[in-house]
Amino acid sequence: MRVGVIGGGQLARMMVSPAVALGIEIRVLAESADSSARLAATVIGDYREAETVLGFAADVDVVTFDHEHVPQEVLARLEASGVTVRPGRDALEAAQDKIRMRERLAALGVPMPGWAVIRTEADLESFLAEHGGVAVVKTPRGGYDGKGVRVVRASADAADWLAEGELLAEELVDFRRELAQQVARRPSGEMAAWPLVETIQRDGVCAEVLAPAPDAGDLAVEARGIAETIAAGLEVTGVLAVELFQAADGRLLVNELAMRPHNSGHWSIDGAVTSQFEQHLRAVLDLPLGDPSPTAPWAVMVNVLGGPEAATMPDRYPAAFAAERGVKFHSYGKASRPGRKVGHVTATGTDLADVRARARAAAGFFEA
Amino acid sequence: MRVGVIGGGQLARMMVSPAVALGIEIRVLAESADSSARLAATVIGDYREAETVLGFAADVDVVTFDHEHVPQEVLARLEASGVTVRPGRDALEAAQDKIRMRERLAALGVPMPGWAVIRTEADLESFLAEHGGVAVVKTPRGGYDGKGVRVVRASADAADWLAEGELLAEELVDFRRELAQQVARRPSGEMAAWPLVETIQRDGVCAEVLAPAPDAGDLAVEARGIAETIAAGLEVTGVLAVELFQAADGRLLVNELAMRPHNSGHWSIDGAVTSQFEQHLRAVLDLPLGDPSPTAPWAVMVNVLGGPEAATMPDRYPAAFAAERGVKFHSYGKASRPGRKVGHVTATGTDLADVRARARAAAGFFEA
Repeated sequence: MRVGVIGGGQLARMMVSPAVALGIEIRVLAESADSSARLAATVIGDYREAETVLGFAADVDVVTFDHEHVPQEVLARLEASGVTVRPGRDALEAAQDKIRMRERLAALGVPMPGWAVIRTEADLESFLAEHGGVAVVKTPRGGYDGKGVRVVRASADAADWLAEGELLAEELVDFRRELAQQVARRPSGEMAAWPLVETIQRDGVCAEVLAPAPDAGDLAVEARGIAETIAAGLEVTGVLAVELFQAADGRLLVNELAMRPHNSGHWSIDGAVTSQFEQHLRAVLDLPLGDPSPTAPWAVMVNVLGGPEAATMPDRYPAAFAAERGVKFHSYGKASRPGRKVGHVTATGTDLADVRARARAAAGFFEA
Repeated sequence: MRVGVIGGGQLARMMVSPAVALGIEIRVLAESADSSARLAATVIGDYREAETVLGFAADVDVVTFDHEHVPQEVLARLEASGVTVRPGRDALEAAQDKIRMRERLAALGVPMPGWAVIRTEADLESFLAEHGGVAVVKTPRGGYDGKGVRVVRASADAADWLAEGELLAEELVDFRRELAQQVARRPSGEMAAWPLVETIQRDGVCAEVLAPAPDAGDLAVEARGIAETIAAGLEVTGVLAVELFQAADGRLLVNELAMRPHNSGHWSIDGAVTSQFEQHLRAVLDLPLGDPSPTAPWAVMVNVLGGPEAATMPDRYPAAFAAERGVKFHSYGKASRPGRKVGHVTATGTDLADVRARARAAAGFFEA
């Protein structure tokens, strides 16, 4: 069994460990020789070039992804050549294009913030008028970690982007908190869902994840239903992450989708029987899914972002390991740049406040 | 931080996952291009050749081992060249040579079966006379998994081996069961011990490990004391496994030593906060050790041995995964040969009988 992963980032890197454990060969098409997943990189090349990707795909059983950026034309070439691509081109489109995502989720009847496609300033003015004079405007493609997203109060605020093409406008949701629901689905239709988690963003980037989401009550069942509806409806194969708003008025609304392992599921490496990375491999290989149950009452993951100093996480291990013997440390082997995700830590245990304090303390050793 | 591992077997392979997680570079000197640890292999060569090993060691921070077979002369060359070798040459000698092991453990006052160095048939006759007419005779070097071990009742039974050099004779212990105690020690002297485990051998090969050892009582404290005495006394750096007999008369006696991750500790990957493989990396890098506590009341590991069929473990995953959703599967990526260790499975949970049944059922899918 050989899995080929397009993209050499930390998500590909974190697929390496379960592949090694299960005895599955993993090969990576990486952007550069010093990519995070370099240990498994067999081709260095550009994922936008069909010939490069076809060559890479020739000696694996299934192609999957570290990111959503492979162009539809390249995906079409792969599928036309008989390559097994999971998730498939059609499903991936809903993770690549935010307008397509809204259109397809609307067809599935999934609860979402108010939204509209914006082609002219007049479209945006009318959306603003209907939504209290404020909107979240998003470029349909290429955004992540808060990029390509802008809060606007006048159509002029988005005029530069509108000149480039159509935009998505969304209701600015007054939310109590953000949540994420992950589910894995294999081609046979079998699905497995992890518990609903709470995600805490800082400057548009995931900072902390609490698993399970505290005091979720019925929301856990509702969120799972939404994620399963989307996974089945879009015929997702692999791991799907659904980012959700818990609105102040109680509504649960779909914010974004990712069709790959996702930052909101990193806790599962150390806190679930089957991690999102192992489950993604199982799902794309059409193997029966593993048990997604948590192994401890609480898990808290805290991201480590690069600071202004050039220190790497391992440089700080002597102090961090001595202070936090039970925390699990993950470093992505990437050069540190301010704001860049360079690793994460996960603590588990029976008392949420204690688990959270330990995770935060451990992450604190890597702040500049 | 770069760790170099000499030997490309499954122990080196299982060090790859924690190295990837921690962002530690791992390089392997492997015997062949298709070794179990091939993903991290940077040199293919013979670990008995000093130049090969010195070249491999030149660009890592510390050298450690997948096996005990690197000759003392090569280790001496490494240390003379300023290479950091952990465990060191002097400690390793006690894991390489069973006579040296007995001599050094005797000096530490550790409880052992009766033993003697055998140079002549007369030596063996007199040992037999003192031990009820039966002895376990071992070649000092090169034995593993029951090889190089013979039960004898007359000196003639060992004449062929004696012609090759001196032998170790040991009392044939009437034991109730076999146990193993693992401890990690870093150069600073810090130690961390996993729980005492029960090991069940079949045809001289480890078949099953129960963690912790059921009904161990005071033996757990005694075993830990023995392992710590040995680790400190021999100045072991890295993971030490002490194989023990629980004799029918109640004595706890040291059988064998291994100074590396060991089959008796594979359960720790899925059943402890810090696995033996992560702990070995921490210890040889002189980093503070992780928490060795179990994450579940019981863990049972069952080895998977190659059968007469050429099927690999992944070939059987569809049936095995469907039946045992919560069991963790490990395949070493090695060609199957009868009796060869090709993988293992680990189950965890709160009821020992249930955990054991699940682990055995999962392993059963890979029997011929």
